[in-house]
Amino acid sequence: MKAVSFQGKDTVAVVKKPIPQVMDDYVLIKVAYAGICGSDLSIVAGKHPRATPPLVMGHEFSGTIAELPQNPRPDLKVGDRVTVFPLITCGECYVCKMGLPHVCRDLKLFGIDTDGAFAEYVRVTQDTVFKIPDNLSDKEGALIEPIAVCIHSARMSRLQIGDTVVVTGAGPIGLLMAMVARAAGAAQVIVTEVSPTRIAGAEKLGFTVLNAADDKLVEQVLELTRGRGGDIVFEATGHPSVAPYLLELVRIRGQIVQVGIFKQPVAIDLRAVNFHEVDLIGVRVYTREDYDQTISLAAQQKFDLNSIEAEVLPLDEAVAAFASAKEATAVKTMFEIAG
Amino acid sequence: MKAVSFQGKDTVAVVKKPIPQVMDDYVLIKVAYAGICGSDLSIVAGKHPRATPPLVMGHEFSGTIAELPQNPRPDLKVGDRVTVFPLITCGECYVCKMGLPHVCRDLKLFGIDTDGAFAEYVRVTQDTVFKIPDNLSDKEGALIEPIAVCIHSARMSRLQIGDTVVVTGAGPIGLLMAMVARAAGAAQVIVTEVSPTRIAGAEKLGFTVLNAADDKLVEQVLELTRGRGGDIVFEATGHPSVAPYLLELVRIRGQIVQVGIFKQPVAIDLRAVNFHEVDLIGVRVYTREDYDQTISLAAQQKFDLNSIEAEVLPLDEAVAAFASAKEATAVKTMFEIAG
Repeated sequence: MKAVSFQGKDTVAVVKKPIPQVMDDYVLIKVAYAGICGSDLSIVAGKHPRATPPLVMGHEFSGTIAELPQNPRPDLKVGDRVTVFPLITCGECYVCKMGLPHVCRDLKLFGIDTDGAFAEYVRVTQDTVFKIPDNLSDKEGALIEPIAVCIHSARMSRLQIGDTVVVTGAGPIGLLMAMVARAAGAAQVIVTEVSPTRIAGAEKLGFTVLNAADDKLVEQVLELTRGRGGDIVFEATGHPSVAPYLLELVRIRGQIVQVGIFKQPVAIDLRAVNFHEVDLIGVRVYTREDYDQTISLAAQQKFDLNSIEAEVLPLDEAVAAFASAKEATAVKTMFEIAG
Repeated sequence: MKAVSFQGKDTVAVVKKPIPQVMDDYVLIKVAYAGICGSDLSIVAGKHPRATPPLVMGHEFSGTIAELPQNPRPDLKVGDRVTVFPLITCGECYVCKMGLPHVCRDLKLFGIDTDGAFAEYVRVTQDTVFKIPDNLSDKEGALIEPIAVCIHSARMSRLQIGDTVVVTGAGPIGLLMAMVARAAGAAQVIVTEVSPTRIAGAEKLGFTVLNAADDKLVEQVLELTRGRGGDIVFEATGHPSVAPYLLELVRIRGQIVQVGIFKQPVAIDLRAVNFHEVDLIGVRVYTREDYDQTISLAAQQKFDLNSIEAEVLPLDEAVAAFASAKEATAVKTMFEIAG
């Protein structure tokens, strides 16, 4: 079968691999769609702390069950359309034992720590399989993983109907976060972004978009929020340029949910954290519960996943796909593997 | 009457002032004890953003009612032993209107923004007066304000019986915080501190104390907490030296309550905030509800306030008292004004 492999810093190649064997508790999935994530870009840039070449990347995907093991899960059958919960947890650390495996001390991901889904077939353990409802397409199914990040973030906050939400960054996560905030009943969703393409994309979805490169960004946010700032800020860039004004975007007694990953320590105004009694909430990936809820909400069309502008390429065009994802020419770059 | 006045950077003087007139809704209080707070030191150092000389400082105190206005609060009478809720709030901003006046946009404090309690008499509005129960001494009554800071901090956290708590700093607030954590049912309270005097003081109160200047501080905290870190860290220093390792003191999914005030933005590891899903909770002062509860808990001897080593001086020795408070020769320096 064909697969897209990280071969070393800045090197992606289409390689031939054997189709994985079904054994023990594994199912074989014929991959339909798989999205390129920011962490895949970080892998290819040689900056991911865990990923080592050669590695087939890909952890956000959909497909159909091609083969079941001898003792299959009773609710699964060949041909079922599915997506996969990609967390690999140790089960042994104190966090796993506390019932919080998604923040496992030794958390690993399918497609980062093991071979993943940029391939014609993947093998996963049965317990990681979630069925895709009939009214969601395969392409939508491949977006369940990134939306689950946003559902988790919303559920880790105390977002309430009527809140004003600021989302910093209109990349795939920022945009999905804004959609989730809207679906959660936010009265106003303000998105900040520097890239003109992404600004245009966020505007097309009906959000109030501010250019984060503008000197007057904070004043503009205050103007839109009666001088207060957002009730909740979802920080979805992890970019050091946001840190100096991050605390100015949130109202007194508001919450900042840190969704983006800051690679280095950054200076933030902890005095404002005190004086404004701000709650800074760290979030990581999602739980199985979040996954169930994401699928249920997506099936109810609570967010219009088809409005996410996706560039879709075949596996053979992997080099172009990664270049395009890096340039962010579309909101999302995906592989269509079996259409 | 005598009063201790901030006369300009590094200058404190004992001055003569007229006894305030009772009028409108004010009561006159004959001051018994008044504590010197870190913010008073910052005023004298010329570093407080709001305080301007000449100013009679002092916002944590006890005394007796000397005179009531024409229309007194029905539950007050001359001779009542009282302490005062020193927050001055605007009542007009969105935070006040949200019912959160303690984080008023224009929050002021008695003794910082107006003349305060380092004086023989003070005048306060009736609504700020809280009665001191019979079984608390005047000296204990003057500690209600700083303990209320710690009760507020504990109540803003999700501290639960059985938790392991780390308190950074064994100054007055750190020590009271450790006492409050113990009273809240913490199974273990670890205090970190650099000053040998304060380390000895915290040890005398039965806390596990670690020298924060030790290279192996983090390892020691991990050793005491089965490799996890504290369930909750109360940061009570506001000192930049704590920032680099602050995130290493707390367990995955733990909370950091920021009690100390960082005067400048400091670099913190926001990636650990994500990856460990840490909740960083900013706290400021206290609510009236916290004040009521603090008095009730103190009256029940839930914390041994007499174990707080206090140096007590008369108003006449104001210069020595401020020097002593700056040197932190005792945990707390207080004025005994009417014994």
